[in-house]
Amino acid sequence: MRHILTALLASAALAGVAQADPLRDSALEIFKPLPSTIPAVKDNPVTPEKIELGKALFFDPRISASGVFSCYSCHNLTTGGDDNMETSVGHGWQKGPRNSPTVLNAVLNEAQFWDGRAEDLKAQAKGPVQAGVEMANTPAVVEATLNSMPAYVNLFQVAFPGEENAANFDNMAKAIEAFEATLVTPAPFDAWLNGDDAALSDDAKAGLQLFVDKGCSSCHSGVNVGGHGYYPFGLIEKPGSEILPPGDKGRFAVTETADDEYVFRAAPLRNIALTAPYFHSGKVWDLAVAVEIMAESQLGEALKPEETAQIVAFLDSLTGTVPVITLPNLPPETATTPRPTAVVQ
Amino acid sequence: MRHILTALLASAALAGVAQADPLRDSALEIFKPLPSTIPAVKDNPVTPEKIELGKALFFDPRISASGVFSCYSCHNLTTGGDDNMETSVGHGWQKGPRNSPTVLNAVLNEAQFWDGRAEDLKAQAKGPVQAGVEMANTPAVVEATLNSMPAYVNLFQVAFPGEENAANFDNMAKAIEAFEATLVTPAPFDAWLNGDDAALSDDAKAGLQLFVDKGCSSCHSGVNVGGHGYYPFGLIEKPGSEILPPGDKGRFAVTETADDEYVFRAAPLRNIALTAPYFHSGKVWDLAVAVEIMAESQLGEALKPEETAQIVAFLDSLTGTVPVITLPNLPPETATTPRPTAVVQ
Repeated sequence: MRHILTALLASAALAGVAQADPLRDSALEIFKPLPSTIPAVKDNPVTPEKIELGKALFFDPRISASGVFSCYSCHNLTTGGDDNMETSVGHGWQKGPRNSPTVLNAVLNEAQFWDGRAEDLKAQAKGPVQAGVEMANTPAVVEATLNSMPAYVNLFQVAFPGEENAANFDNMAKAIEAFEATLVTPAPFDAWLNGDDAALSDDAKAGLQLFVDKGCSSCHSGVNVGGHGYYPFGLIEKPGSEILPPGDKGRFAVTETADDEYVFRAAPLRNIALTAPYFHSGKVWDLAVAVEIMAESQLGEALKPEETAQIVAFLDSLTGTVPVITLPNLPPETATTPRPTAVVQ
Repeated sequence: MRHILTALLASAALAGVAQADPLRDSALEIFKPLPSTIPAVKDNPVTPEKIELGKALFFDPRISASGVFSCYSCHNLTTGGDDNMETSVGHGWQKGPRNSPTVLNAVLNEAQFWDGRAEDLKAQAKGPVQAGVEMANTPAVVEATLNSMPAYVNLFQVAFPGEENAANFDNMAKAIEAFEATLVTPAPFDAWLNGDDAALSDDAKAGLQLFVDKGCSSCHSGVNVGGHGYYPFGLIEKPGSEILPPGDKGRFAVTETADDEYVFRAAPLRNIALTAPYFHSGKVWDLAVAVEIMAESQLGEALKPEETAQIVAFLDSLTGTVPVITLPNLPPETATTPRPTAVVQ
């Protein structure tokens, strides 16, 4: 029996199964691997019916006043869950105020938006639909749109059984939240946290060590390697006004507390290699440069080039696998569907 | 043996398998069911590798100068392969000149665009990318974009083996054509043409009979129920200037022949119930109204309401099944990827 055990242990070691590893032990105190099941959300049981409806709504440009924009427009699931622009283009070709954050793994953030002003994804989902610079729509028109299509009304009734007038704005947001809860992206870092020694390169491991030792993980921690906690941008040294525009005081606009000037939610770093440009201003396109700016402004550290490269290698290990998403077939309009408005100014 | 044959024939009849049917016989002389395999295209063998690359390109907004628009923006595969707007919104919120046609089954059209100015889909694909009111990009910038991403270069090399500098504008168009060739949508009308008596309702069959008898099928015929042949809009009676704007002389702009004033390619009618609003001007939202306008302007016929309803029932039977499409994971940008330009005017 002892022989068999010894042989098993030896083969486990050869296969790269976890050995005692102080780096992993300390990492597990700071970070958490993604769950293997769809995360639960507050006051909104996630059901297959809600997910299906939410996917349809996420892809539906008729939610916007112009008929041009859907959630997918700025949270493009083919390019990391964001739109790869400094700030998004919205209704009438207006420029949004801040860089579009990724929807991938957003369900695991403590709160939504750069300033955390939405408690959760169902609260978040209502924002862009009504924002004048984004979809420029109203709840009344959205509800008229949804109720004009019998196939949508049916999807809502199935997703929210027993509710009268189920095709309403609140349920739209809940269904979108349910779909977005499915958008978690397991990455090599998760495999390594879960015990697969071979999942991270030596550079990535060295980068992780630096990420912890230098203090990055003081703010960027937890399951989303960020996405919770609020911190001033420029804690040690304010970056230039292009990167930190003086007109955007961050969380101050939410709390109206002087301490919250230029305070933002720590950015979640999963899939960060896919979501350039960086920061709320979207002014930095190179991940290495973004790492250097963070080190200087938040930690007062001037990183050596090889340290930056190793931290970037660690960040690359946060690029995950997006779930397979099939395009929905959206309900067709009817004669009573509100027409796109204000298409051209 | 004769007993077995008799029994087989009887059970075939019970299962709704085709009986002698004069309507089907005449329909088969005018129309053709969709093929069961991906249509071949000229000078561009359709391979799985080209299809995969073409799908990525079709969904990639980085093909546009602004980074806002992809092929999918105006040829939305969740809403019938078009954008459900009068005319599309493009670069700088400009309004396009004509209604966006569906990409579904477009491979089977004789030529592309409302005026047939592109011979095939690979010629068509180059148009919107360069049009100032659409994507406003240039071949040089597109090629720089594609070649800045090693994952794209690799996809091109695999799709176009042995070619030097495979990631070029011509191959982009060929790959998009290959993907678009897969977008055929078998419909109840095909099942009926193929012999399934139960696939069409009585109203749809009556509508088909009217469609043939009144003369609609003189122009809207073949596998796409249109999509080939050029005809003057307003053959018998010109519709109003809102529906037929005097500034758009159709195929005249292509041929510069007086006979081609207000001449357009007969619209392909597959999935027409999903692709309101109608006509090159996109001014008519109701399919029944569109049918009435066509009957009056092209045939000098005033349809009775029940005739219109039956023709609409036939047109509904052209709504097909869109292939299952999974979203691609697009190659991530690199430091040398050209940035979105002219995002805000």
